[in-house]
Amino acid sequence: MEPLKLGLAGLGTVGGGVLELIAHNGEALAGRCGRALVVTGVSARDRAKPRTVDVSKLEWFDDPVALARSPSIDVLVELIGGAEGSARAAVEAALDAGKSVVTANKALLAEHGTQLARRAEAKGVSLNFEAAVAGGIPIVKTLRESLAGNQVKRVFGILNGTCNYILTRMQNEGKGFAEVLADAQAAGYAEADPSFDVDGHDTAHKLSILTSLAFGTEISTDTTPLEGIRTITPADIKAADELGYRIKLLGVALRTDGGIEQRVHPTMLPKNSAIAQVDGVLNCVAVDSDFAGEIMLVGPGAGARATASSVVSDLMDIATGTSRPTFRLPVASVEPHIRAPIRAHEGGYYIRLSVYDRTGAFAAIASRMAEQGISLESIVQKHPRAGLPGSGRPSRIDEPTPVVMITHETTEAAIRQALEAIEADGHVHEKPQMIRIEKL
Amino acid sequence: MEPLKLGLAGLGTVGGGVLELIAHNGEALAGRCGRALVVTGVSARDRAKPRTVDVSKLEWFDDPVALARSPSIDVLVELIGGAEGSARAAVEAALDAGKSVVTANKALLAEHGTQLARRAEAKGVSLNFEAAVAGGIPIVKTLRESLAGNQVKRVFGILNGTCNYILTRMQNEGKGFAEVLADAQAAGYAEADPSFDVDGHDTAHKLSILTSLAFGTEISTDTTPLEGIRTITPADIKAADELGYRIKLLGVALRTDGGIEQRVHPTMLPKNSAIAQVDGVLNCVAVDSDFAGEIMLVGPGAGARATASSVVSDLMDIATGTSRPTFRLPVASVEPHIRAPIRAHEGGYYIRLSVYDRTGAFAAIASRMAEQGISLESIVQKHPRAGLPGSGRPSRIDEPTPVVMITHETTEAAIRQALEAIEADGHVHEKPQMIRIEKL
Repeated sequence: MEPLKLGLAGLGTVGGGVLELIAHNGEALAGRCGRALVVTGVSARDRAKPRTVDVSKLEWFDDPVALARSPSIDVLVELIGGAEGSARAAVEAALDAGKSVVTANKALLAEHGTQLARRAEAKGVSLNFEAAVAGGIPIVKTLRESLAGNQVKRVFGILNGTCNYILTRMQNEGKGFAEVLADAQAAGYAEADPSFDVDGHDTAHKLSILTSLAFGTEISTDTTPLEGIRTITPADIKAADELGYRIKLLGVALRTDGGIEQRVHPTMLPKNSAIAQVDGVLNCVAVDSDFAGEIMLVGPGAGARATASSVVSDLMDIATGTSRPTFRLPVASVEPHIRAPIRAHEGGYYIRLSVYDRTGAFAAIASRMAEQGISLESIVQKHPRAGLPGSGRPSRIDEPTPVVMITHETTEAAIRQALEAIEADGHVHEKPQMIRIEKL
Repeated sequence: MEPLKLGLAGLGTVGGGVLELIAHNGEALAGRCGRALVVTGVSARDRAKPRTVDVSKLEWFDDPVALARSPSIDVLVELIGGAEGSARAAVEAALDAGKSVVTANKALLAEHGTQLARRAEAKGVSLNFEAAVAGGIPIVKTLRESLAGNQVKRVFGILNGTCNYILTRMQNEGKGFAEVLADAQAAGYAEADPSFDVDGHDTAHKLSILTSLAFGTEISTDTTPLEGIRTITPADIKAADELGYRIKLLGVALRTDGGIEQRVHPTMLPKNSAIAQVDGVLNCVAVDSDFAGEIMLVGPGAGARATASSVVSDLMDIATGTSRPTFRLPVASVEPHIRAPIRAHEGGYYIRLSVYDRTGAFAAIASRMAEQGISLESIVQKHPRAGLPGSGRPSRIDEPTPVVMITHETTEAAIRQALEAIEADGHVHEKPQMIRIEKL
């Protein structure tokens, strides 16, 4: 069979990984898919830049859109990045020219996934993006193909290696967020401007793609409730540990009667669960579905080589004629994304309060919880030298005492009202900490 | 597009699950693959047997071979089981008649996989078997497709739910093997004759299929070194826990310079690893490969619904024309399976000895280890009331003292020679316990 001719737009880390993989394993993979993968054209910003793989023999394009339209390529591999600009232009040009596209660009998919899928479908070509979510983990194929006979109930995962690395080190070393972030930046595990990662935006992009694949709904990122990991303190990690939990930043999407609940936030997970042991820069994705039950995939969420593995998997699907609807369903069947309000979320909560040691303080807090119908599974008062605040034992007035509570299942609306009332009562020294417990 | 017409041979647990899935999710999956799946013919031993799904409207075949050859079906779904007899005859008949086959039959594949793949290839049809290994976990697709760009270094996993259930309960409850086995039998988690599971044969079948997919070698089961879980004692589980390990029955295959090392045995795994938390009847499979790094998949390893999910995934691949070589490579390119001798295995070991408390006993043991160049990472003497055996502290003569050692990396040949010499010296009360440590 004719080789599959590839045009590579973007020669950064992942582009280099793809060239390296094809150079290294090209013969073996041609044997497996009955067809060679050959890079014939490349495009990048700076032709003169020194690269680890020699591209001087390949056709060079200054303009990725020209590469996308070139008759010398069958497939565009878009590794430029970014939701707009030349990445978007090149992908649209390739699809409109009837060429399949492989991309690792989560921002592009999160912003324009549905219309790009429509273009691909109109031309009968593939838009593959295994590398866009969780790097080397084959979650897109698992949702599109392996679980295609199932109705998905929930999809969730650790989708950002930077956050997981930071939380793991906070856990292991007892250090604070700022200190570990600085270390992570020095080690190259976090960007100079870390907010895209640590505030949860990256997780939200990936989650929006997973949601669409899992539930057959249009991609929607804009209004995902988003909490990052900056507010997690060593006190939270220590209290979680004592109560049998680990804290992980999760992206979670589930189908409820009120729509799709899609949220990104730090989460308490039982520490004897497999997901709680997914540490460091590793990612994982779990899928609950009606027949397959709960499947979890763990692996490297980033890195040139792991990402290249996913890009090449997508290319081999195109080489062998494997094709499924981009987001699991033809675009005409994709449903609008109806968002369930976060206030309707049901679950248990971890609450950490910093309570002034005054008579009646704790009684006031307890009655605020009771007013909302919230019952407590456990309560821990972390002040070693005294009883519960307000219990009458001697203690210095106005030195706040940490109190940690785990609630039974309740609603987000109830917990928010209770915490607002507690704050308004003035018995707490700082904004209450609230971390959702994810039921496994 | 025309519906894909299915002939279902075998209406047991999994067959019932497949009928139920298609009844429940048939419309959704037709939307996803552009084609309906319709069961048109069935075959089972007893037509009169009451079933949960009504099959009275379907064409009945007393002989599964007649079903396989019937022009009324496009694909044979073989759920009879067993390496020979009607399962084999029906699969061969279907392939020879140019029909694709989906099977959950690991014994059939382990014994006859290569020749069946040759028949499928000759007719240009698919032989799919996602359900044959690890139930609902999509490991076959992951190896065949997602990791197709990689060279696999090692594949390993918890492949038998019965063993994992028993070991998990021994761990959690401190009970012995026999007691937990009896409970498991009563609860339906273990067969009346448990040896196929607890002695490792089932794991070996599944492992042989994984090995072939991972390394492109012919399937070979016969001479896999096999150790089951009957010899694991509460003392081992307790000692492992204190040393930071969990004991799991693993199937492991890796490529070495001397060939494929393929083995099934209880294994020590660090207890803070994700795989160590895969408990109960869950299965998992991990794959180390050159670009994707280490990927792990966790999920239900058995059960009607999870297995049906995998069968339907295979069917949807056939419905959409997705096709890859049966064992990742065309049969002509599959290499012979050259087995690395287990004595060449390199790794750390857990050793538990029951040592008579005599002067010189421990010195003799230590020198037997030293003779083989084995160094110790740690040593624990589990007798609370005394020092190391032979250390001169008072103790009742001939009451054996448990001694647990963890070795640094050594070879299987060295450890076996050392243990044989220790046994021959007569200082130990029973055959030494030896459990391999798997490096993660």
